[in-house]
Amino acid sequence: MGERKELFKTGSGIEVKPCYTGDDPAPGLAENLGTPGGYPFTRGIQPTMYRGRFWTMRQYAGFATAEESNKRYKYLLEQGQTGISIAFDLPTQIGYDSDDAMSQGEVGKVGVAIDSLADMEVLFDGIPLDQVSVSMTINAPAAILLAFYIVVAEKQGVPPEKLNGTIQNDILKEYSARGTYIFPPAPSMRLITDIFAYCAKNVPLWNTISISGYHIREAGSTAVQEVAFTLADGIAYVEAALKAGMDIDTFAGRLSFFFNAQNNLFEEAAKYRAARRIWAKIMKDRFGAKDERSMKLRFHTQTAGASLTAQQPQCNIPRVTLQALAAVLGGTQSLHTNSYDEALALPSEDSARLALRTQQIIANESGVTDTVDPLAGSYFVESLTDEIEKAVLAYIEKIDSLGGAPAAIEQGYIQREIADSAYAWQKAVEAGEEIVVGLNKFQMEEEPVKGLLRVDPAVADRQVEKLRKLRQGRDNAAVDAALEKLREAAEKDDNLMPFIIDCARLYCTEGEIAGTLRKVFGEYHPVEIL
Amino acid sequence: MGERKELFKTGSGIEVKPCYTGDDPAPGLAENLGTPGGYPFTRGIQPTMYRGRFWTMRQYAGFATAEESNKRYKYLLEQGQTGISIAFDLPTQIGYDSDDAMSQGEVGKVGVAIDSLADMEVLFDGIPLDQVSVSMTINAPAAILLAFYIVVAEKQGVPPEKLNGTIQNDILKEYSARGTYIFPPAPSMRLITDIFAYCAKNVPLWNTISISGYHIREAGSTAVQEVAFTLADGIAYVEAALKAGMDIDTFAGRLSFFFNAQNNLFEEAAKYRAARRIWAKIMKDRFGAKDERSMKLRFHTQTAGASLTAQQPQCNIPRVTLQALAAVLGGTQSLHTNSYDEALALPSEDSARLALRTQQIIANESGVTDTVDPLAGSYFVESLTDEIEKAVLAYIEKIDSLGGAPAAIEQGYIQREIADSAYAWQKAVEAGEEIVVGLNKFQMEEEPVKGLLRVDPAVADRQVEKLRKLRQGRDNAAVDAALEKLREAAEKDDNLMPFIIDCARLYCTEGEIAGTLRKVFGEYHPVEIL
Repeated sequence: MGERKELFKTGSGIEVKPCYTGDDPAPGLAENLGTPGGYPFTRGIQPTMYRGRFWTMRQYAGFATAEESNKRYKYLLEQGQTGISIAFDLPTQIGYDSDDAMSQGEVGKVGVAIDSLADMEVLFDGIPLDQVSVSMTINAPAAILLAFYIVVAEKQGVPPEKLNGTIQNDILKEYSARGTYIFPPAPSMRLITDIFAYCAKNVPLWNTISISGYHIREAGSTAVQEVAFTLADGIAYVEAALKAGMDIDTFAGRLSFFFNAQNNLFEEAAKYRAARRIWAKIMKDRFGAKDERSMKLRFHTQTAGASLTAQQPQCNIPRVTLQALAAVLGGTQSLHTNSYDEALALPSEDSARLALRTQQIIANESGVTDTVDPLAGSYFVESLTDEIEKAVLAYIEKIDSLGGAPAAIEQGYIQREIADSAYAWQKAVEAGEEIVVGLNKFQMEEEPVKGLLRVDPAVADRQVEKLRKLRQGRDNAAVDAALEKLREAAEKDDNLMPFIIDCARLYCTEGEIAGTLRKVFGEYHPVEIL
Repeated sequence: MGERKELFKTGSGIEVKPCYTGDDPAPGLAENLGTPGGYPFTRGIQPTMYRGRFWTMRQYAGFATAEESNKRYKYLLEQGQTGISIAFDLPTQIGYDSDDAMSQGEVGKVGVAIDSLADMEVLFDGIPLDQVSVSMTINAPAAILLAFYIVVAEKQGVPPEKLNGTIQNDILKEYSARGTYIFPPAPSMRLITDIFAYCAKNVPLWNTISISGYHIREAGSTAVQEVAFTLADGIAYVEAALKAGMDIDTFAGRLSFFFNAQNNLFEEAAKYRAARRIWAKIMKDRFGAKDERSMKLRFHTQTAGASLTAQQPQCNIPRVTLQALAAVLGGTQSLHTNSYDEALALPSEDSARLALRTQQIIANESGVTDTVDPLAGSYFVESLTDEIEKAVLAYIEKIDSLGGAPAAIEQGYIQREIADSAYAWQKAVEAGEEIVVGLNKFQMEEEPVKGLLRVDPAVADRQVEKLRKLRQGRDNAAVDAALEKLREAAEKDDNLMPFIIDCARLYCTEGEIAGTLRKVFGEYHPVEIL
């Protein structure tokens, strides 16, 4: 019989055969799998996985001011969300205050505007920080927002050793894929290892980094590239921390990862399994980790924004369902499901709740959470897992040969690989070889969607006014002194976290702290990709 | 670590272990699997499955009059549906005309009202019956509607040997679960074997029956019971046809099945695989079929109406996605995805389209269609497939010991088993042991849903007026003569199909034809379940 295509392959270019049998998985399957909770963790990092408890249901949210975002978090918690995930606006992500000229038109738009501890206090008003885990998508200024967070907790009476959460703090993927960097690589890496060292001592349950493939994938990479470039970044962070004199088992257990969940159900599920196995081997064999916690790849997943269509937006609900399922079948620790209107606007309360319900339905109704790693043994999935592992290792070898991830980014290698994949996908969609329902097939005339969330343009004015009052009301001599001490520490080799925390306590703004570091560290300017 | 539940089990009561390994599937896995398209067809009935072509996307639809339903079919075909599935109203399903006192309040309500060939002509106006496959959910009066269909095709210039489609024609599950019967078992079985014999000669591509577990499941059975009682019904039909003197390989290849897709993803996928394997063995070993076509269980699937909630109806979109995925992973030949508003009303155009888009997304975007039986080898899924097979065979043995499905239904055994399961589920939901999102957890205040489809109450009047004109305009002497000939044939042993087709040509109404048979055959009265 004829087939639909001449060649079937996954997005990563792995050929898919008509039929897989027991001969397809690589030899040594039982050993490659291990037991659930046991090395090399292919089947998951816990022995009972979701039989114990479900993943953390954590919807990425934030918009306008701290007041409005606080209300949304409370709403989501009421609806059964089990963790919080903060979206910051662009100025906050690149270290500018809301009243900075650079912030024009962007205040509160793609996330919440946070200028100082004062905003952070409002953001977590009525949310006890010893009872909820909070993830913050913040990178270049991660140390500053973490400092705000630690001080808010302190004011709530929650000591740092009880804080449970994550900062993204992954600068390498900003250079290669996402673009919200501030400083050049060397001081950026120093800030990151400062955080590792500070938290190892003072905030021991904190996930000090979320090494992120998500944005690499959103930028158009394949699944294999997503894992390869993310793990290569992970290797670079480990090497930086080792170089800074830390012992592997003091910090590696607090590294965490963040992956995308795209459409190809089995390739995605296999991707997470492969990533766990590769990371475990790297940590054990390459870095000599002894503690099993250092070998366990723990990850958050977000469904793929890039897969959503503005056309027929309700079609995004089944897409998100399939993607979320992939993440669960792959053993994620935490999950954000996109709202179906995200290709059009910020999620409304209704669409955000439906996205959460999708997780709750998978957790409570689908039965897939009742046994660990239900796909284990599937000839197809095991074969995909092996193929992904092989292809990822080849990439890591290549990146090693270029001098590691920072050097490969410096040379534009990673950016080019991603751009090539993005281009190939675009061409395949244009040629109709890849079908996106509603976009290049099954199109229709549509009415404009109603009920979209729009951020009030007055948000920026309110935020600017709040800053004006803050600067009037605080002890500005103390502020200046603290900033000066931070500057001095930055010029030396001191761990910067205590200095930033001191600034935070005095209501120094994010822009002031980042600006001080900018003066010492300079700014990063991207390499041109040829 | 503690677990969420003391005991994890599927809806069928199969215990789910924390972890499955290579030791879990029954010995002889390779043989139990066979190759795709090869005996015992566990992996599917075709060698290439969806690499060749996708399943038929066939949305069950029909309401009000033939005109309105015709418009809906054309809309769905325009939107990419690849087959038609007719929902008839209740009077049509139990053999009453729209002007019958028994039809009061039900005309055009749960499906389209079809009183005669005249309605059927309108129903398929502009739909070329040699180019589309049509499934009709009609049972007790299946012969009459099939006759209407054959004559409409004839008038379109399409000879019966080119007709491709299905009549449900499964009376046993009407007695045990669904309730739209007319005649007692013996004449009902005769009508069915008459159709088998007539179609074998004259409509060779027609699926003469769709042996249906769907309604057994909707009535509250487990997955195991659904398969067991459906296959037991299948055995009864085969035995009736053999008793009527037919050779197994002349009719068995045109038997088809119809299953439900419920929430438990892997149990459902395993269910279809187990059903194929069991049926192949029954046909080969018990009935001595020689032709592999006789051994292949081909099936249509519909997602579970009973799983949908009227609360937060958009939550039904992820449910339907998961259920549809189960059907595809299980190798269905044809699929209906429920619309999310079906717990509230007939599907609107918008919700029906979204349900179809869900199939199109699974087919075109998820990658699960690129290899045959992607779950094969999964320790969990293979183990579930084995367990389901074992439990189904135990039920079939029990039913054999009661004298077969008709006798087991007569004794109320099957009805009681279903009722017990339905009761156990209800109790588990009430106790919160089984969670239904929006129903017994994550509830919320809701606004009434807008845009629901309501059938115009004037439909009945229009239908009655149309019948009045029909009766005035036709050759009533010829009508009476044809009905008399049918009566005579029914009293003898003649195949009734040619007589019913003659009646259809003369515009005898469904009620007149069914009424004639009612006089000869009598009516069925249900057994009381103790």
